[in-house]
Amino acid sequence: MKLCMIGSRGHCAYVFESITEVPDVTVTAVSPGCEDDPSRLLAMSERAGFHPELHGDWRTMLDKAAPDVVCIDGPFDKHAEMCIEALRRNIHVFCEKPIALTLEDLDRIQQAHAGSSARIVSMVGLRYDPAFYQAARMVHEGAVGKVKLIRAQKSYKLGTRPDFYRKRETYGGTIPWVGSHALDWILYFTQDTFRSVTAVQTAEDNQGNGDLEIAALCQFVTRSGILASASIDYLRPVSASTHGDDRVRVAGTDGVLEVANGKITLIDAGGERSFTPETPDRKLFSDFILELEGGRPAIVSDAETFELTRACLLAREAADTGKQVLF
Amino acid sequence: MKLCMIGSRGHCAYVFESITEVPDVTVTAVSPGCEDDPSRLLAMSERAGFHPELHGDWRTMLDKAAPDVVCIDGPFDKHAEMCIEALRRNIHVFCEKPIALTLEDLDRIQQAHAGSSARIVSMVGLRYDPAFYQAARMVHEGAVGKVKLIRAQKSYKLGTRPDFYRKRETYGGTIPWVGSHALDWILYFTQDTFRSVTAVQTAEDNQGNGDLEIAALCQFVTRSGILASASIDYLRPVSASTHGDDRVRVAGTDGVLEVANGKITLIDAGGERSFTPETPDRKLFSDFILELEGGRPAIVSDAETFELTRACLLAREAADTGKQVLF
Repeated sequence: MKLCMIGSRGHCAYVFESITEVPDVTVTAVSPGCEDDPSRLLAMSERAGFHPELHGDWRTMLDKAAPDVVCIDGPFDKHAEMCIEALRRNIHVFCEKPIALTLEDLDRIQQAHAGSSARIVSMVGLRYDPAFYQAARMVHEGAVGKVKLIRAQKSYKLGTRPDFYRKRETYGGTIPWVGSHALDWILYFTQDTFRSVTAVQTAEDNQGNGDLEIAALCQFVTRSGILASASIDYLRPVSASTHGDDRVRVAGTDGVLEVANGKITLIDAGGERSFTPETPDRKLFSDFILELEGGRPAIVSDAETFELTRACLLAREAADTGKQVLF
Repeated sequence: MKLCMIGSRGHCAYVFESITEVPDVTVTAVSPGCEDDPSRLLAMSERAGFHPELHGDWRTMLDKAAPDVVCIDGPFDKHAEMCIEALRRNIHVFCEKPIALTLEDLDRIQQAHAGSSARIVSMVGLRYDPAFYQAARMVHEGAVGKVKLIRAQKSYKLGTRPDFYRKRETYGGTIPWVGSHALDWILYFTQDTFRSVTAVQTAEDNQGNGDLEIAALCQFVTRSGILASASIDYLRPVSASTHGDDRVRVAGTDGVLEVANGKITLIDAGGERSFTPETPDRKLFSDFILELEGGRPAIVSDAETFELTRACLLAREAADTGKQVLF
């Protein structure tokens, strides 16, 4: 299986985290996908034992290298175009989230997907985080009964970010970029889809980061009537022990389950107890490849990739307009 | 100072928690305020060393006993009428929250208040909880810098509740009843007022409790642009160690402060640390009385009482209508 890689602006390192678990995958070519320096992409490939060709132009690479799968991690505002070009060539897509920064681009990807034999998933790697992976399985198995209320939190350190984070056109917004994980946990834990959303956001006090929203809140109702919220911010102090403070709280008819600080807490009829999560039996990239190869079904689907992207963009629209948005 | 008490449906016990700190206050008369059994009210008074007259009719009591202050804790849907009658008689009011179940009734109370020499505050006792009281002071003193994002959580055990909880007309709704504490923390911590709200709620799976909403979410923007949310539910399992799981998370430009499990956690430039809260230097009822007597200013004002009640009712309206409501 030939893998090409475009860009390294986000989380393309997921590929190398589990590529040894799918030994028939070979990184045959890479392209920065823009004016970015390709050395990080080349170095990661070399460290993993690959010696890919370097292409300046990513379209030429897709044509000449003719990969089975492409990892798309170029400029955020080019994800959609790159996805569409790959799907048109029937190349499976493993793309940084969100896969599109506008609803029009998302529609265009879905059209290309409908006419393609290729699959597409986005890098929702935090589904595979030990605590969230195990907690979601517990919820799926009925640990809290029927889910009524779910809250997800993403809190990041702001740090110093590249210039493209400062413009909405090149960054996409904090709800899609940071919030996508929170929204994905809601979708994953509830196994439901969204019906409506309202959202608020603020770019004030963002330490000179242009359009970048420093904080946001989203409030959803799912199709089945679950109330869901996401709290998203870049306000985590630099002194904090980890980059992100990732949490989920799920309250149902039979219990309350929480993930925080990498641990799971459950209160149900049997009382309150904590779980130290086990190492998951799957990883993001290899999970996708194994399914492509006809093996075990992956836990991320094309439909969920589209649903998540649409949710991010509609939540951003709700925040931009101050109006409730229906799905 | 003569104190009369009407009803004991809610938190009138706050009176007896600190009445010994204001020794010139005497409970001279009580009335159940409805068909309720007055024995709890009488027993509490007796235990505190008072021997109040019992009146069947609360209006007659206000006229005959002519108190300086009245504690109002009758049927929720009678709070407004009782407040108005007391204010018209220039009797200071210490009322269970929310003081009104409709915006029309709230307006009528405010009109009566405008023409009265009497004061009114509602029983926002959780401001005086050690952890929240100390945490709010820390935030006021700049512990997190400029507040950008605040989340408050109220999670209660449902238990078995009297019939009046099952009807909107007599209960008022879960956002006003349970959520009032969460909204009050937001007002108290931020020292701000609300600009807009959207909210969602659900009464499904409420274990046969009629109209009672089992869960709700509210999302606010304050006048100064702070993003605020409240998560409210009756989903706390019966096996949990406490009745309520009360929390606040405040994220600002210089740090993140949280209250949970009765403790305070702060992450700022100096790192992460916890605080075991000290016993507050004030309690709800005596704080009000001391201010009435010309002593130390209380931490709850008439204006905040009106603001909180209006916020509860507008948030409920947002949830009922599915529309954003502006303040």
